[in-house]
Amino acid sequence: MNQYDQLKWTVNSKKKVLSTPIFDVYEQAETAATGIKGDYLAIDAPDWVMTIPVYEGKFVMVRQWRHAAERLSVEFPGGIADEGEDPAKTAYRELLEETGFKAGRITHLGTVSPNAAIFSNRFHIYLAEDLIPTGETSLDDDELVSCELIPIDEVIASYGEKDYSHALMGTALFFYLRRLYDNQ
Amino acid sequence: MNQYDQLKWTVNSKKKVLSTPIFDVYEQAETAATGIKGDYLAIDAPDWVMTIPVYEGKFVMVRQWRHAAERLSVEFPGGIADEGEDPAKTAYRELLEETGFKAGRITHLGTVSPNAAIFSNRFHIYLAEDLIPTGETSLDDDELVSCELIPIDEVIASYGEKDYSHALMGTALFFYLRRLYDNQ
Repeated sequence: MNQYDQLKWTVNSKKKVLSTPIFDVYEQAETAATGIKGDYLAIDAPDWVMTIPVYEGKFVMVRQWRHAAERLSVEFPGGIADEGEDPAKTAYRELLEETGFKAGRITHLGTVSPNAAIFSNRFHIYLAEDLIPTGETSLDDDELVSCELIPIDEVIASYGEKDYSHALMGTALFFYLRRLYDNQ
Repeated sequence: MNQYDQLKWTVNSKKKVLSTPIFDVYEQAETAATGIKGDYLAIDAPDWVMTIPVYEGKFVMVRQWRHAAERLSVEFPGGIADEGEDPAKTAYRELLEETGFKAGRITHLGTVSPNAAIFSNRFHIYLAEDLIPTGETSLDDDELVSCELIPIDEVIASYGEKDYSHALMGTALFFYLRRLYDNQ
């Protein structure tokens, strides 16, 4: 028996307790390796994708209203992977739709869980370089988005303040910063 | 009118569509400044807290089963703020309960939204230093947790791989890394 096997749990059954257009919530009846039992919640959704677009020493960012936080938020572009879509393609597509920039090069920076405790889906982070501005965005009717080019140093220095307050953007910035220092 | 006012939305009404012990889900009927209307989901929960504990060049981490991701995960200790609790106190308390380390010094590194699109609560990140090991943890019956001291460089290099796959831990690492380079 592996030394960590006693930390593991098995899902005995799942029950959907909420279905929505962007996520479903399940209640999972589980048994631990130690024998204890419990019910746990899991939010399932398509995979999420975020792209860090770099253009002439600036990040290409989107300012938009975030409905749950009830505030404006400046973030990297991103979105939801279509069913069966390669997340690298989602990264390319969402960047183009939201900002009008075509990516010449897309590099995978990392894939993690949005929150391993309560989310079943995955969160993919990409770097987009060699950008070509097309000047044309393609947004849904209710996607009110302002595209902004902001100096990289300013975003890194300001993250956590003002309108830079989305945790998953912080995750993306970690991957960006680690890569930057690894390459120095 | 501010240049960004046209991006804003107003919540007209909220309806609770799911109530659970760890989060509630609301459907919000909203109107944009442009006049269009829509329904949006918001997950509300108590604030979440994560602590980066540093002890003799190592991070004090917890390995535990994450029920939604259905995998083991190695993370910084953390948890849910009790009602009305100062999140700095949550940071101190969760560190002691999960690892047995008492923090001599707690520093606030940042506060962001777990995911501004769908979460209404906040996520607070702290640095814990001058740690004193008590050797005694205080866990709930179903909290099967292994406390591990891991070299800081190893965690930073490995994040995104193996069992280091929790996005909010990446957010915390960004704040840690930025502070490290700012102080150099």
